Amino acid sequence: MPGNTFGAAFRVTTFGESHGPAVGCVIDGCPPGHPLDLVAVQAFLARRRPGQSNLVTPRDEADSVEVLSGLDAESGRTLGTPICLLVRNQDQRSGSYADWHHIYRPSHADFGYDAKYGIRAWQGGGRSSARETVGRVAAGAVAEQLLAARFPGLRICAWVERVHQVDARAAIDPLGVIRAAVDAHPTRCPDASAAAAMETAILAAKKRGDSLGGNLRLVVQGIPPGLGEPVFDKLDALLAQALLSLPACKGVEVGSGFAGPDLTGIEHNDPYAWQPGQPPAMATTSNRSGGIQGGISNGMPIDLRAVFKPTATVLKPQASADDAGNNVELQAKGRHDPCVLPRAVPIVEAMAALVLVDAWLRQRGQVGDPWPGLAGPLHPR
Amino acid sequence: MPGNTFGAAFRVTTFGESHGPAVGCVIDGCPPGHPLDLVAVQAFLARRRPGQSNLVTPRDEADSVEVLSGLDAESGRTLGTPICLLVRNQDQRSGSYADWHHIYRPSHADFGYDAKYGIRAWQGGGRSSARETVGRVAAGAVAEQLLAARFPGLRICAWVERVHQVDARAAIDPLGVIRAAVDAHPTRCPDASAAAAMETAILAAKKRGDSLGGNLRLVVQGIPPGLGEPVFDKLDALLAQALLSLPACKGVEVGSGFAGPDLTGIEHNDPYAWQPGQPPAMATTSNRSGGIQGGISNGMPIDLRAVFKPTATVLKPQASADDAGNNVELQAKGRHDPCVLPRAVPIVEAMAALVLVDAWLRQRGQVGDPWPGLAGPLHPR
Amino acid sequence: MPGNTFGAAFRVTTFGESHGPAVGCVIDGCPPGHPLDLVAVQAFLARRRPGQSNLVTPRDEADSVEVLSGLDAESGRTLGTPICLLVRNQDQRSGSYADWHHIYRPSHADFGYDAKYGIRAWQGGGRSSARETVGRVAAGAVAEQLLAARFPGLRICAWVERVHQVDARAAIDPLGVIRAAVDAHPTRCPDASAAAAMETAILAAKKRGDSLGGNLRLVVQGIPPGLGEPVFDKLDALLAQALLSLPACKGVEVGSGFAGPDLTGIEHNDPYAWQPGQPPAMATTSNRSGGIQGGISNGMPIDLRAVFKPTATVLKPQASADDAGNNVELQAKGRHDPCVLPRAVPIVEAMAALVLVDAWLRQRGQVGDPWPGLAGPLHPR
Amino acid sequence: MPGNTFGAAFRVTTFGESHGPAVGCVIDGCPPGHPLDLVAVQAFLARRRPGQSNLVTPRDEADSVEVLSGLDAESGRTLGTPICLLVRNQDQRSGSYADWHHIYRPSHADFGYDAKYGIRAWQGGGRSSARETVGRVAAGAVAEQLLAARFPGLRICAWVERVHQVDARAAIDPLGVIRAAVDAHPTRCPDASAAAAMETAILAAKKRGDSLGGNLRLVVQGIPPGLGEPVFDKLDALLAQALLSLPACKGVEVGSGFAGPDLTGIEHNDPYAWQPGQPPAMATTSNRSGGIQGGISNGMPIDLRAVFKPTATVLKPQASADDAGNNVELQAKGRHDPCVLPRAVPIVEAMAALVLVDAWLRQRGQVGDPWPGLAGPLHPR
Repeated sequence: MPGNTFGAAFRVTTFGESHGPAVGCVIDGCPPGHPLDLVAVQAFLARRRPGQSNLVTPRDEADSVEVLSGLDAESGRTLGTPICLLVRNQDQRSGSYADWHHIYRPSHADFGYDAKYGIRAWQGGGRSSARETVGRVAAGAVAEQLLAARFPGLRICAWVERVHQVDARAAIDPLGVIRAAVDAHPTRCPDASAAAAMETAILAAKKRGDSLGGNLRLVVQGIPPGLGEPVFDKLDALLAQALLSLPACKGVEVGSGFAGPDLTGIEHNDPYAWQPGQPPAMATTSNRSGGIQGGISNGMPIDLRAVFKPTATVLKPQASADDAGNNVELQAKGRHDPCVLPRAVPIVEAMAALVLVDAWLRQRGQVGDPWPGLAGPLHPR
Repeated sequence: MPGNTFGAAFRVTTFGESHGPAVGCVIDGCPPGHPLDLVAVQAFLARRRPGQSNLVTPRDEADSVEVLSGLDAESGRTLGTPICLLVRNQDQRSGSYADWHHIYRPSHADFGYDAKYGIRAWQGGGRSSARETVGRVAAGAVAEQLLAARFPGLRICAWVERVHQVDARAAIDPLGVIRAAVDAHPTRCPDASAAAAMETAILAAKKRGDSLGGNLRLVVQGIPPGLGEPVFDKLDALLAQALLSLPACKGVEVGSGFAGPDLTGIEHNDPYAWQPGQPPAMATTSNRSGGIQGGISNGMPIDLRAVFKPTATVLKPQASADDAGNNVELQAKGRHDPCVLPRAVPIVEAMAALVLVDAWLRQRGQVGDPWPGLAGPLHPR
Repeated sequence: MPGNTFGAAFRVTTFGESHGPAVGCVIDGCPPGHPLDLVAVQAFLARRRPGQSNLVTPRDEADSVEVLSGLDAESGRTLGTPICLLVRNQDQRSGSYADWHHIYRPSHADFGYDAKYGIRAWQGGGRSSARETVGRVAAGAVAEQLLAARFPGLRICAWVERVHQVDARAAIDPLGVIRAAVDAHPTRCPDASAAAAMETAILAAKKRGDSLGGNLRLVVQGIPPGLGEPVFDKLDALLAQALLSLPACKGVEVGSGFAGPDLTGIEHNDPYAWQPGQPPAMATTSNRSGGIQGGISNGMPIDLRAVFKPTATVLKPQASADDAGNNVELQAKGRHDPCVLPRAVPIVEAMAALVLVDAWLRQRGQVGDPWPGLAGPLHPR
Repeated sequence: MPGNTFGAAFRVTTFGESHGPAVGCVIDGCPPGHPLDLVAVQAFLARRRPGQSNLVTPRDEADSVEVLSGLDAESGRTLGTPICLLVRNQDQRSGSYADWHHIYRPSHADFGYDAKYGIRAWQGGGRSSARETVGRVAAGAVAEQLLAARFPGLRICAWVERVHQVDARAAIDPLGVIRAAVDAHPTRCPDASAAAAMETAILAAKKRGDSLGGNLRLVVQGIPPGLGEPVFDKLDALLAQALLSLPACKGVEVGSGFAGPDLTGIEHNDPYAWQPGQPPAMATTSNRSGGIQGGISNGMPIDLRAVFKPTATVLKPQASADDAGNNVELQAKGRHDPCVLPRAVPIVEAMAALVLVDAWLRQRGQVGDPWPGLAGPLHPR
């Protein structure tokens, strides 16, 4: 009911405030017997860690993850019981937030929390902070391992496609991007020239106390047909929920998305064709559907785009209001991400992994694994 | 788990296949004692009914709703128990689908269902058909009545903003649109000139067996601050799930959406200001947030846009594949909506009502009603 | 949230009031491709139907079930989509309840519903009536078919063990009872001599307008080890919830139950022993655990007992109160079951099937099927 | 799905293995603004702590609770966000379990976990250990505080009623027992004479390596009418689930329970009578219903009994089996509770608090607070 749990079969509950003692998650429903690679989990967390470059907040957090439960001490395998992953907060400096104890920061969640609960963790945004995503990323790292073990060809890859006026979309082949190329540049844009331009733009914005938004692209390859629950829990509907549940995300489009209406139906439809092989595999000769039709994966690459607004924290005086009824000027100071896009990349990948592992376990529960769509033509005659 | 239920507190489960005996829903969690206006429910259903104009499918369905449970027979009030709403299918003509019993229609859900379940209701798409939305609209009509009784200023209004190359966005004042103006034209575009152009385009597409997509705008006024669950069940995240769970929807954006990154943070932030009044009310002097910040309503109009692809059913020969491994040519025939946008309007309004009534009951459960944000400044000193 | 849905993976939502238009259920999560035997579903419903004998209420209901969705019309197989099962109410006679429109019947749910909702379906108890169980039994009949297809040795059998002062416990071998023997006598007690005594007692109570309670025994054979979720959703905890959710049920015990403390731990423990076979199977040489240890099935027969209080409807003047603050005398009249036990038998079997099919699908989702415990010794060396 | 979460509105997820790093819980859905009394939470935990007396296991655990999230650091008030409560394990001695790394202890959950997951935390039972209940008790302590703030007359009290052959039932007035009297004796039986006899019996059993079971009584006073969800989530059904989800619990009865059928309906019904007052309050002149009718509280004391089997751990040689297919003799050693009843008392109270706080928040969500039944006669004329 209260919205801190995600997933139906692989259920992740995150906890923790930005400036409280700790952040983390409990994963319930993890399949048993999986040899969890904790080094890989830690490495995944390192990709969202603050302080990685001069493009992101200098908050200094080691983000060392501690496993409190759910693992067999001897073998390191999952027990099938809840896995609690804990990360202590270290570099908290609540003091730097004292000025806005009673002031609502524009386009932040401060007023919303106060209106909802009558109380809020004003130090750094509490749970509306991007710090809450530590638990998501830790859980997503576990999810990705489980998926990779089941679907060996799986490749989940997100990257920064646009920052403010720099749009690298046309320069990037979405099916050719690999994570190493994305991580090679602190902007996490795999096109070197656009990455350089983005970096320049971000540093300029940072220097003037401003911030920038942009787009992020997500492509998932290697997901077989048949995943996703039709009707309300369509695979794309849950991916959209997952991404729009991230701080600063303001929109999601799948496949052709908002450009879809540029075409007519005849132009837009994706023709089916069985591909030769043992067994033959279904494919479509275009992928305007973005790998999902009727809410169910069709075996083609899953292709989404998400937009993130410019960071709400800016270091300039702004008109605002306090919690006592006064209109005031706010002068923000302290640390911030001048552009959330680079750090959003692993978070988006983690959310995708959470949606997909849940879809797989739901499918296995209702239909079994293997399921019909894994074996080529469904009704050979 | 299987995804046919929506909502946590006001739970709607839809059932029924397009060409089965009936479609409908069960609402669980409806507050008791509400005098349900069944005439209004029926009128809401009439707005999504096929056969309303020559712009939509000629399938002829009266869509008379029968209430099987949950109402007090004497007073017509809700009992607080499950409300089952039933609509019989009448004009089924499964025969017209016989040709594609074994052929997957491009960009439809046929292959996905088969890959998932190994069986599918091939007559007219089963549950992937827009006919499934009858249950959603019936439930949404109930939800809207409950919301209107609690929030007298509530106004949920959606309209067609774009069809193919006709974009009426600049011509429409989003806060001034009312439902009557939307329903005045069969396209459900409230700008007369754009509506006429859209009608021409749709009829031309229909004539050549083609189809068109477009955008739909949703504005909700009168929702107080404090609704929506932070973290995974953010109000915008659930609205996005709700809309992307509709057939043909391929994207959602909130507030500034995909245009947000055109601005920098300083330009994009929405300044807060208490408005004079008894009590003073919070407002922002711009609404790029679309009425939702940190996943929680802030009292400003909720503002979303959704894109719908061109209808997948087109009456031209298309390359496709059958369920036995053969690549074939498909010649679709029969009835279809050359453009789903006009009928999507009430469906989107219904989904919005479902998200909002659920958010309200969740808030009442955890925090109570009235809650802090309803009473002006939160912490007067 | 509102409690009209049961199950996590195989989700059953019942709807309908005793004297409304209809009762029924929606099953969400049914595995696809199962050839549903509707004749068997109808036969299962006939076992709980009123009017079967002079021991039960003479209300005359055909209880013909109509399938509104979820079945493939050609093959009769389940589609994997929601199955709506509908039974129209026929013999309603609300008139006979008019006298207690404003009076709370003692030990009924009338006052509770009014206190909770401020409104109630006073005609015949609304949803607190045993008529609500029609939806459970229909769903349970589906569940049992699914279980039988997966676990061929499955045998779910309940019977009446005690009515008032007639206790047949010592006369019945719990592992030898079959459903045909239970149904052979209208009391549903498989011991002929006790059955006759029970019948005499029930008819005498009926004649004097009184009612009787008793015990019901449930044994499930053929469930393999490994089903049931540890911690909160233990298999026995969910069975207890399932049975105590039935009208008039006031207690449940598992295995040794309330007699367990008669023994010490040394006396009470069930020794394990691998039984010869290919592969060897685990068994315990006693079954005081009732087939469930730590909330998980161990492969031994599941063995429970439930107690049902004497029917609250009695045809004698009783002290009671009305809804306006007055203490009044109530003279009940009309139809009633002088003893609910005989009709409770199929209802209890249905609830057991619902718990077990859900446990199976949950297990398949998290662990897979087959799972470790199906293959003999777990860690051969 | 996996069963480690309890509650629909006030959701508690426990985590942790008996001999892992920690145990604890996450509470999601806690109302905001409550000044949490952490000293009282710690005191509640102390009541279930091992090592309190020579009647219980000597395992030495301080069970200091750490709050990782969900509290406002300044005011100590709840934020409405997830509350993570953590207790580190200290006195683990896994070594003492090494002998049964591969042997299933009779009437324990060892085999079940292995059959279910193919892996198990063999050191001390993992999550089937009573140590898992630390998280429940911590959460229950929070729940009780919330309930007491809303329902000032609330009194949740459990006690030991029977141990093996010592049955104190007749000697105790259930409505007169207070927690101080229960805690005054290490057996937690409020009748001094029976308590002494129980102590003697437990010590004798302990000395011979044996164990004892018994009954526990739970009475909750001060719950108003109207709580509990009819149909599947009846208040008594959820209480039964809650208690049967505890280790060693094998049965639950409500009100008259298994003695109900001793009476006929005329004898058994609880007559209603409005009690003078402003406003008049409903009461029944007997309470065979145990405070719950139709699954909804009726304002009378809630009255349950639960049975706990003798502890499965006994320090005598027992016939058993290993995980490789061999039948072996097991010689248990190490620490154990010769009787779980005394420590079960606070655990049962905690579970009752969890069920009740959840029922309250669900009621507030669907119906509002105050709700109809709080204000005397429902329909004055």
